[in-house]
Amino acid sequence: MNKSLPNQAIVWQQQQLRLLDQRCLPERVEFVVIQTVPAAHAAIQDMVVRGAPAIGISAAYAVVLSAQAQAAKTWAQARQAIAQDIELLATARPTAVNLEWALTRMQECLRQQTDIDVAVAALQREAIAIHKQDIAANEAMARLGAAYLDQRSRVMTHCNAGALATGGIGTALGVIRQAHSDNKIDYVLANETRPWLQGARLTAWELAQEQIAVQIVCDSAAAAAMQAHAVDWVIVGADRVVANGDVANKIGTLNLAIVARHLGKKFMVVAPLSSIDRNTSAGTQIKIEQRNSREITHLGERHLSAPDVTAWNPVFDVTPASLIDVLVTEKGVIEQPGQAKIAALFEH
Amino acid sequence: MNKSLPNQAIVWQQQQLRLLDQRCLPERVEFVVIQTVPAAHAAIQDMVVRGAPAIGISAAYAVVLSAQAQAAKTWAQARQAIAQDIELLATARPTAVNLEWALTRMQECLRQQTDIDVAVAALQREAIAIHKQDIAANEAMARLGAAYLDQRSRVMTHCNAGALATGGIGTALGVIRQAHSDNKIDYVLANETRPWLQGARLTAWELAQEQIAVQIVCDSAAAAAMQAHAVDWVIVGADRVVANGDVANKIGTLNLAIVARHLGKKFMVVAPLSSIDRNTSAGTQIKIEQRNSREITHLGERHLSAPDVTAWNPVFDVTPASLIDVLVTEKGVIEQPGQAKIAALFEH
Repeated sequence: MNKSLPNQAIVWQQQQLRLLDQRCLPERVEFVVIQTVPAAHAAIQDMVVRGAPAIGISAAYAVVLSAQAQAAKTWAQARQAIAQDIELLATARPTAVNLEWALTRMQECLRQQTDIDVAVAALQREAIAIHKQDIAANEAMARLGAAYLDQRSRVMTHCNAGALATGGIGTALGVIRQAHSDNKIDYVLANETRPWLQGARLTAWELAQEQIAVQIVCDSAAAAAMQAHAVDWVIVGADRVVANGDVANKIGTLNLAIVARHLGKKFMVVAPLSSIDRNTSAGTQIKIEQRNSREITHLGERHLSAPDVTAWNPVFDVTPASLIDVLVTEKGVIEQPGQAKIAALFEH
Repeated sequence: MNKSLPNQAIVWQQQQLRLLDQRCLPERVEFVVIQTVPAAHAAIQDMVVRGAPAIGISAAYAVVLSAQAQAAKTWAQARQAIAQDIELLATARPTAVNLEWALTRMQECLRQQTDIDVAVAALQREAIAIHKQDIAANEAMARLGAAYLDQRSRVMTHCNAGALATGGIGTALGVIRQAHSDNKIDYVLANETRPWLQGARLTAWELAQEQIAVQIVCDSAAAAAMQAHAVDWVIVGADRVVANGDVANKIGTLNLAIVARHLGKKFMVVAPLSSIDRNTSAGTQIKIEQRNSREITHLGERHLSAPDVTAWNPVFDVTPASLIDVLVTEKGVIEQPGQAKIAALFEH
């Protein structure tokens, strides 16, 4: 498959974090240089970087930035400052579990340190390891997921679970890239994904760059499109998979899963182990981030909707495991996911 | 109930047709004066006026404009010119059956004429009768539909099936207005309805003007919203109901009907007899209008999506009768609509 990554969203270079500003795409390819923890926190909150794995990786690098800033302090002071920064970073966005997962790893690494200089180097190694592990997980999931697709598959995807949302080739789009490379993709329908239009802006851009046939559809057209275009698979990423297999993902995923089941289409979720939260037993317990009404009522400064009317703007919804046909992880694929099968993933 | 109609979309005044330009709402309340048949054709095609009943009424008035323009001709020439204009008007938009229905009535009226001056007056009477009939039908449907709602109902609606889409108080919004007046509405969720945002722009505006509690949601949030807000009813209009009860309506209606059924919510379609097409046996035979990709990829001149990527842009989808709990017409309500029950509506 094409191993080139035209859209690296996260670059760690010369002790600095560079994030591709996804709010500007596809109009401009623009990187934001992140030098401090508050800047990283704001970049995650304001969606300069988005996508569960990408948020986790960015936060890990932000911990390195924190450590770099403590050179003048005693080790006790430095360790406390880094620990506080980790706590701050964890609050940037609530739903994606990768943030918590990556920060827990950084915290573990921090706990083993005794000296600031060594700690900086160790934390940097850990952040790079998290990043590399995500790249490898993407590639493993791509192979495992693509094996489920037949020749000439027609696929629908939602939001952006691509290179821009991860450290590597993407989760859902990783599967689509691999399947395309295996000559299995007829074409892809990308739901535009309101209100941020990640599908129209990011997914369509990623796929078009790799010459994968893609067309945008309004989110509301999903059922009509699945019928008219004889879609075989709906393939999405995940922001959090919980112990019983329920999945929090971009708002609209639940709609798609219900419609896919009703119309007899297959539904695949692609998520690395870092997105699986075994401490939460069921989807009803997931905290769903609510964002500002203005993301829906306005486009930039332009008022789209009736004045003085607000919007309900949850960023994610929860799809019950019962509507998921296949859950792809880098450790293996689960059909009809449920608690026992998910627990088994972690046993080997 | 509140009989005031703050948003009359169609005004016939001094032998001229005035259409509220719905493309400008809610930013500006602006009327377009229509003086010729080509102008009326363009206004329907370009969505100055939209909504199945409103399109039919506007086309009927356009036939009067045609007749008024033939004063200098012989009756034979005039009749032929009017008949040609009727044919032209019928091509403005393909999916809403009301256009065809209203023009057939105008054609029937024309056939009975023998003199241009008398014809102008007769055609004007017929167009006004069509308009008044729609107002009365709206009110009858509002009463019949509202009777199905319990106290404190939470309702979701899609697109705009309100005063702006009809001659009167609306179809779906007519039911909601009546139920509100009966103190039965807790609140309304209006799906924003991409790509034209009729829900966010028009429905939210209509309801807010009448102090009916309304909040906008993205189309993709429908399933999450039905659950989180404990929606009781999804209530929509129709662009064409066919002989077996299948319904063509704004893209996204099929999604909603599937999701509502899955989540145990009730689904109501409100449509006057003028929207029922008994000559088409099933939904699969309905011609679905496809519009320009640019309606999705751009907002005005601004490019929203990845460059060089197109969108699939059907304006309507078809909901099978089996997913509809209640079909409300001015002649009565049908539960679990089907061919026999629909035929029976026309027998009495």
